[in-house]
Amino acid sequence: MTNDGCLYMGGAVFAFLLVWCGWSYANPIVFGGNNFMLRIVSDMRSECCTHPTPNLRFDPPDSTFYDDSELRYSIDKKVTGWDDKRKEWLKRHPTFTAGSKDMIVMVTGSQPNPCQNPIGDHLLLRAFKNKVDYCRIHGYDVFYNNVLLHPRMKSYWAKLPVVKAAMLAHPEAEWIWWVDSDAVITDMEYKLPLDRYNYKGHNLAVHGWPKLIYEEKSWTSLNASVFLIRNCQWSMDFIDAWANMGTISPDYKKWGEIQRSVFKDKLFPESNDQTALIYLIYKDRRLTDKIYLEGEYYFKGYWVEIVPTYYNITKKYVGIEREDNLLRRRHAEKVSEQYAAFREPHLKEAGNGRWCWRRPFITHFTGCQPCSGNHNQIYAEESCWNGMLKALNFADNQVLRKYGFVHPDLLDSKTVTDSLFDYPDEGPW
Amino acid sequence: MTNDGCLYMGGAVFAFLLVWCGWSYANPIVFGGNNFMLRIVSDMRSECCTHPTPNLRFDPPDSTFYDDSELRYSIDKKVTGWDDKRKEWLKRHPTFTAGSKDMIVMVTGSQPNPCQNPIGDHLLLRAFKNKVDYCRIHGYDVFYNNVLLHPRMKSYWAKLPVVKAAMLAHPEAEWIWWVDSDAVITDMEYKLPLDRYNYKGHNLAVHGWPKLIYEEKSWTSLNASVFLIRNCQWSMDFIDAWANMGTISPDYKKWGEIQRSVFKDKLFPESNDQTALIYLIYKDRRLTDKIYLEGEYYFKGYWVEIVPTYYNITKKYVGIEREDNLLRRRHAEKVSEQYAAFREPHLKEAGNGRWCWRRPFITHFTGCQPCSGNHNQIYAEESCWNGMLKALNFADNQVLRKYGFVHPDLLDSKTVTDSLFDYPDEGPW
Repeated sequence: MTNDGCLYMGGAVFAFLLVWCGWSYANPIVFGGNNFMLRIVSDMRSECCTHPTPNLRFDPPDSTFYDDSELRYSIDKKVTGWDDKRKEWLKRHPTFTAGSKDMIVMVTGSQPNPCQNPIGDHLLLRAFKNKVDYCRIHGYDVFYNNVLLHPRMKSYWAKLPVVKAAMLAHPEAEWIWWVDSDAVITDMEYKLPLDRYNYKGHNLAVHGWPKLIYEEKSWTSLNASVFLIRNCQWSMDFIDAWANMGTISPDYKKWGEIQRSVFKDKLFPESNDQTALIYLIYKDRRLTDKIYLEGEYYFKGYWVEIVPTYYNITKKYVGIEREDNLLRRRHAEKVSEQYAAFREPHLKEAGNGRWCWRRPFITHFTGCQPCSGNHNQIYAEESCWNGMLKALNFADNQVLRKYGFVHPDLLDSKTVTDSLFDYPDEGPW
Repeated sequence: MTNDGCLYMGGAVFAFLLVWCGWSYANPIVFGGNNFMLRIVSDMRSECCTHPTPNLRFDPPDSTFYDDSELRYSIDKKVTGWDDKRKEWLKRHPTFTAGSKDMIVMVTGSQPNPCQNPIGDHLLLRAFKNKVDYCRIHGYDVFYNNVLLHPRMKSYWAKLPVVKAAMLAHPEAEWIWWVDSDAVITDMEYKLPLDRYNYKGHNLAVHGWPKLIYEEKSWTSLNASVFLIRNCQWSMDFIDAWANMGTISPDYKKWGEIQRSVFKDKLFPESNDQTALIYLIYKDRRLTDKIYLEGEYYFKGYWVEIVPTYYNITKKYVGIEREDNLLRRRHAEKVSEQYAAFREPHLKEAGNGRWCWRRPFITHFTGCQPCSGNHNQIYAEESCWNGMLKALNFADNQVLRKYGFVHPDLLDSKTVTDSLFDYPDEGPW
C-alpha cells in the first residue's frame, strides 16, 4: 500500500473509531460483550421495531395548541385545524412521534353513582380489570371515565364528550378506542387490524353491515358500543355532527322522530347514539369512505351466540397447544405478543366471528344492563350475569396463566389451580 | 494544507459520512430537517433519559428460568437463584434492560365475590380507576387481582401469593408495589423516591417508625397495606418467612399467640400480615438494613388526619399556581411529570406528611372496610364513605384537569365544570 493510501486509511480508521467510541458510550448494549457479531445481530433482532420510550418529563416552551386561549375541551365547542395542531405537538415531542401511528388510548366508563343492580359495580369492576389486563399486555393506555362531561349528554350520549376530551388530552395517540363498560375482551392476544383501517384512510371503525343499513334499514345494522376513531380533524367534525343529534341539540326530539321514521324496527322514541350514527351513514353513502363497517371478526360480538361456545373454543386451543410445545412455553407477561404470533398459523382454519372457533375478540353483553339491572326481558337475569362471569373468567384464564394459575370452572371466580409446567399437557384439561 | 493532510482529512470525512449516513438511516429524527444543530440539541434534550421501548414481540428461544420444570408460582414453593435468573432473562431481552431499574408494577386487588357493602364495589371501582390513572401518568403497569391464589391465604394474607406471582410474571420489573384496594393516591405527581431505597440497597419499604417497634412494641408501628418490594432473591426469601406466619403455616395459631404476647395493644388473636412483619423486624434488628421504615412522607397516610386538610391544601396549590403561570399551562397528560418538576421548587416550604400542606401521597382508609362495610366502630359510617369520595374526587381533579374539567365540589362526583384556559386564574376558584 502506498504512503498516500496509508494516510487515507489512517484518517478513515481514526474517524471511524471516533464515532464508534461515541456511539459505544451512548449505546453500550450493541458494542459490549463477547461474541460481538452475534450480539449485534441478536440485539438488532431484539431491538427491531422499537423506538425511544416517550419522554414523560419533557414539554418544551414552544407554543402548541394548548397555549391557545380559545381551546375548549367541551363537546359543544368546535375544534379546528386539529391535524396541524397534532402534527405540531408531535414535532415538539419527538420521542412520542415514532410510536404514535399505532398508539391507541382505550376509553371506557360508567355512571358517577353506585349501580342500582346489587352486583352491578362488581361486574363493572371486573370488566374494567379485564380491559386493564388487555391494555397492559399490549402497551396501550386506558382511561376510565365516571363523570358527566356535559350535564345534558347522559346515558349512551355521555361517551362522545369523553372521546373528544381524550383526543385533546392525548395528542400522542393516533386512535381513541371506545369500549362500553359491559363489553369484555375475550381474546387477550388479538390486536385491532390497524393496517386494514389505514389502508384506505378510514377514520372510524365500527361493527356493522352495509346491507342492514341500506336495504333492511335496521337500527341494529351497526353497534356503537365499541368504536375506534382516529385522532384527527375529520373525527372532530364527525363527532360534532353525531353529537348534534343528541341531547345537547335543540332538535333532539325531532331527530328521534326522524330516526324512527327511517328505521322501522326502532321501537323507542328517543334519538340514541347508535341510530344517529346509522342515520348519518344512511344519508350520506360517501361516509363509508371514512367509516369502516367491520364485519369480519368480533370487533364486538353478541354474547348470546358467543357464551355457549367458550367450552369448545377452549378445547380447540388446548388441542393446538398439545400439538405445539412452543405454545405451552411459559413466558413473561410482557412478551405475550410473541406467543400470539406463534399461535397464528394454527388458527388459519379457525375462522373469525360467528360459527368459528377462534376466540371471540370482544363479547358484548348488549341488553344486559349490568349497572341498572334493567336487562332486556328476552334475557333471563341469571343468563346475563352468569354469561358475564363466564366471559370474564374465560378472559382471565388467558391472563392468570402468566401468573401461574387457571380457573378450572368458568362459573367459579374464586377457585384457581396451578397451571403446571407444560400446561395444558399437564394440569386441569 | 499539505497533500498528505488532505488525504488524511479526506479519509476521515469519508468514514465519518459513511457512519453518519448509516446512523441517519437508522435514526432519522436526529439528522433530518432544518436548523440542523438546533434540532440535534433539541432532540438530544428531548431524548435525554429515554431508551428503546421494550419489544413486546420478542422472546428468544434461549433457555430461561421459565423453561425450568421445577418452577412454581405458588406461595408454598420456594424460588432459588432468583437474582441470576432475572439477570439472565434481562440479558436475553435487552430492550427491557435499560428501563428496568426504575420499573414498577403496581399490584392491588379485592375479593372474588361482590362486596357485602352495597356501595363497596363502587368505591373499589373508583379506587382502582384512581390507581390506573396514576400508573398511566407515570408509565407503570398495574395488575388487579381478584382470585385467591392459595385457598388458605385469605383476607390480608391473600396479598403475599399475588406479590410473589407478580414477581415471577414480571422479571422486567425491579419493584412490585402492593397498594391495598382502600388506599387512594392523592398526589398524582409524586413519585416514590427510589434513589432513597437504592442508596443503601434496601429491598422493602413500608410506612413505619423504629421507635414504635422497639420501644413501644405496638402492632401499628408500621402499616402493611402499602409496601414496595424489590424483585430479588432476598424478597423471595423474606416473603417465605413472612407467609410462614400466616394461614398456610401449621403454627398459625401459635404465631397469633406470640404476636399478642409481644405487642400488647393487639387485641385480636389471629396472626395477621402486619403484626407478622413487625414481629420479624422486632426479632432481628439487622433486617432494617434491608427494610426501610419510611416515615418522611405519606407513603400511606391515615385518612382521619388527612381528609380534613384537602380544602386548605387545594387553596395552597391554587395560590402557587396563581403566582406561576407555567404551572397553569395546559399540557398533554403524558408530559405531566414535567409540570411536577416545575412545581417542586414551590413546595420547598410545604413539608411532607403530617401537619404539612403538600398533597398527601396516599390516603389510606384504614378501618373503613369499604367492601364488607364492617368499619371500625370508632368511625361513623358516613365519615368513611364521604371521606373516600372526597379523596377520590381530590385525586380525580388532578387527572380530569388534563381532560379539561374539574369537580367544584369534592362531595359531588357527578358534576364537573370546564377548567378554563389559565385555570385557576380563571374558573371555579
